[in-house]
Amino acid sequence: METLILTRNDLVNLVEHVGVHRLMDEVIKVLRQTFLEFDATVTEVRQRDGFAYQVPHPGVLEWMPVMHLGEQAVVKMVGYNPLSPRLYDVPTIVSTISLYDISTAHLVALVDGTFATALRTGAASAVATEVLAHPASEVVGLVGCGAQAVTQLHALSRLFSIRKVLGYDLDAAVARTFPERAGFLGLDVEMVERPRLEAESDIICTATSVGIDEPPVIDDTLLKPWVHINAVGSDLPQKIELPLALLKRSLVCPDYLAQAVVEGECQRLSPAEIGPQLIDLVKRAEQYASYRYSPTVFDSTGFALEDKAVLQVLLAFARELGLGRSMTVETIAADPTDPYSFVRVGRPGLLPEAAEVEASAPAGLARLHVG
Amino acid sequence: METLILTRNDLVNLVEHVGVHRLMDEVIKVLRQTFLEFDATVTEVRQRDGFAYQVPHPGVLEWMPVMHLGEQAVVKMVGYNPLSPRLYDVPTIVSTISLYDISTAHLVALVDGTFATALRTGAASAVATEVLAHPASEVVGLVGCGAQAVTQLHALSRLFSIRKVLGYDLDAAVARTFPERAGFLGLDVEMVERPRLEAESDIICTATSVGIDEPPVIDDTLLKPWVHINAVGSDLPQKIELPLALLKRSLVCPDYLAQAVVEGECQRLSPAEIGPQLIDLVKRAEQYASYRYSPTVFDSTGFALEDKAVLQVLLAFARELGLGRSMTVETIAADPTDPYSFVRVGRPGLLPEAAEVEASAPAGLARLHVG
Repeated sequence: METLILTRNDLVNLVEHVGVHRLMDEVIKVLRQTFLEFDATVTEVRQRDGFAYQVPHPGVLEWMPVMHLGEQAVVKMVGYNPLSPRLYDVPTIVSTISLYDISTAHLVALVDGTFATALRTGAASAVATEVLAHPASEVVGLVGCGAQAVTQLHALSRLFSIRKVLGYDLDAAVARTFPERAGFLGLDVEMVERPRLEAESDIICTATSVGIDEPPVIDDTLLKPWVHINAVGSDLPQKIELPLALLKRSLVCPDYLAQAVVEGECQRLSPAEIGPQLIDLVKRAEQYASYRYSPTVFDSTGFALEDKAVLQVLLAFARELGLGRSMTVETIAADPTDPYSFVRVGRPGLLPEAAEVEASAPAGLARLHVG
Repeated sequence: METLILTRNDLVNLVEHVGVHRLMDEVIKVLRQTFLEFDATVTEVRQRDGFAYQVPHPGVLEWMPVMHLGEQAVVKMVGYNPLSPRLYDVPTIVSTISLYDISTAHLVALVDGTFATALRTGAASAVATEVLAHPASEVVGLVGCGAQAVTQLHALSRLFSIRKVLGYDLDAAVARTFPERAGFLGLDVEMVERPRLEAESDIICTATSVGIDEPPVIDDTLLKPWVHINAVGSDLPQKIELPLALLKRSLVCPDYLAQAVVEGECQRLSPAEIGPQLIDLVKRAEQYASYRYSPTVFDSTGFALEDKAVLQVLLAFARELGLGRSMTVETIAADPTDPYSFVRVGRPGLLPEAAEVEASAPAGLARLHVG
């Protein structure tokens, strides 16, 4: 039983061969399809759980499990450490994704989840925006221009003809580099003050590291009547990005309700104030088409089903291209009733036979391994 | 940021160089030390959680997380699939263990957990037995002689002078091969009927795959007055191995209370009927010494702290011996604010510059990746 490990270099090769645009298109397509086909009796999605800590600095390490009945389970491990870029030159979000065969618990594959998380978070916003935004949307505003903003814009650019991108970031260094980071999209990107962004954008993505209990990252005064907002940043209890009044007058669609009421914008809304989940939104898109002309919010906390979809895309391309390295990690041996038999199989004669054992001589037993 | 992957071959080499006895001694030592030093304000142990299923056959896939504050987190993924040996020639328990740096969520190491689980489950029983069994114990009975019985006996043999081993298994094939599988210990192993095992054993280990709601695997009629039992097999709600009357008249020590009341023998006891947890038992061994002469039960469900300890032992030996392969799995790149920058870093010019992009031509964009 071998484990396929995709290294960073494998992902570099994958992106090189597939191209970032085709890759994003495929993630969007598979994500949309995953939502359309979702059946709760077949796929069990667990709410994110994890460790939260203040030492060595504030952050969380979380696990996001999802099981496809009778087939596979996917578990993403993901850390959110807002000080990582400053302290270690490492992204806020670092992650790995593992795929298990449910019939034996064998680890089928291990893949980076950092890139996958960025891709699928962008793709999820695009899928929600496709249903909820004004069909003639052409101006995209990005509040918070860090890592997630790049893939938010990339994914939206695959579904909308974007005439203008307005960016805003509190951090001058992040703001300065954003046009270059988004340069591969060939869009007209301008860094602006927040009021102009709010007034001119048809679609806004908030992807900030706003602190717990801090005020919202946008105002609710100048927004277009049909604005669609992808609220990507709220992912902790008491961490919110949008003004409450805006939420209350908008159709708010969580990606995954059980999680959004704990850590998303939905944590401040009553059940009656919350719209359909992303899955239902996609399945009944026609029914929600009229909301394109009024304010809508996609409350994105990121959920395990999205990770399963992006993993599926990455593994399919990797297999097509022959990428990755197969390794035998688990000690599965000829005799399932003998935990030491993987040693005997690997090296006959390794374990001492009874006759050779010096009884009750622990100190000398280390010698006995020599076959 | 590299990830150390220990393959099956690395573990074969490790066991070859270290020797199984020294390895088990070290696991017992580190486990005992881990319990002695345990501080709940520093180490957060999570109860096991997971997916339970009946398709393609009955089983569970579980995650067992533990965090050492400010330093590391260990997450074991473990499957329990009792039909695996018969259907796939794969052990009932298959597992992998991952180590994360808590400051960034970086995956530091990935190691097989199948062997580790067997080792630490044996070692945990030995540590508990050391405190609770009659000091002159010399006969060990094994009810259920599958994979776990091998390491139960191995670990006990490192702390007790065992004169006689009595084995019993419902499955004739498993019973027949046990003396050979235990042969490396140089002990007098005899397969017997259960009444004789119950009457003659000072220490009994039950490690069965008894089904849910089935009757106990031993009787409470012939047991020695000072019998100590390691109940290893109960690990699911409604799965139990011991008669209730025996539990009620014994000092029952769970490894991890919160888990044992859900899936261990303790699920049938009231709080007042449950003794100290393993950690407290080891920390205050003197206080419980008088119980060595009356019946005692170690209710072993297996908990995350044990996995952390055994991982520590395996990684220490692996590093000492230079085993394992370091790979860059995560896509950490020069610019933490750009999810695509790992591609640019790996292959300059990979992502198209703005000027080269054919705007709104998704079908043609795949060509653009050629730098």
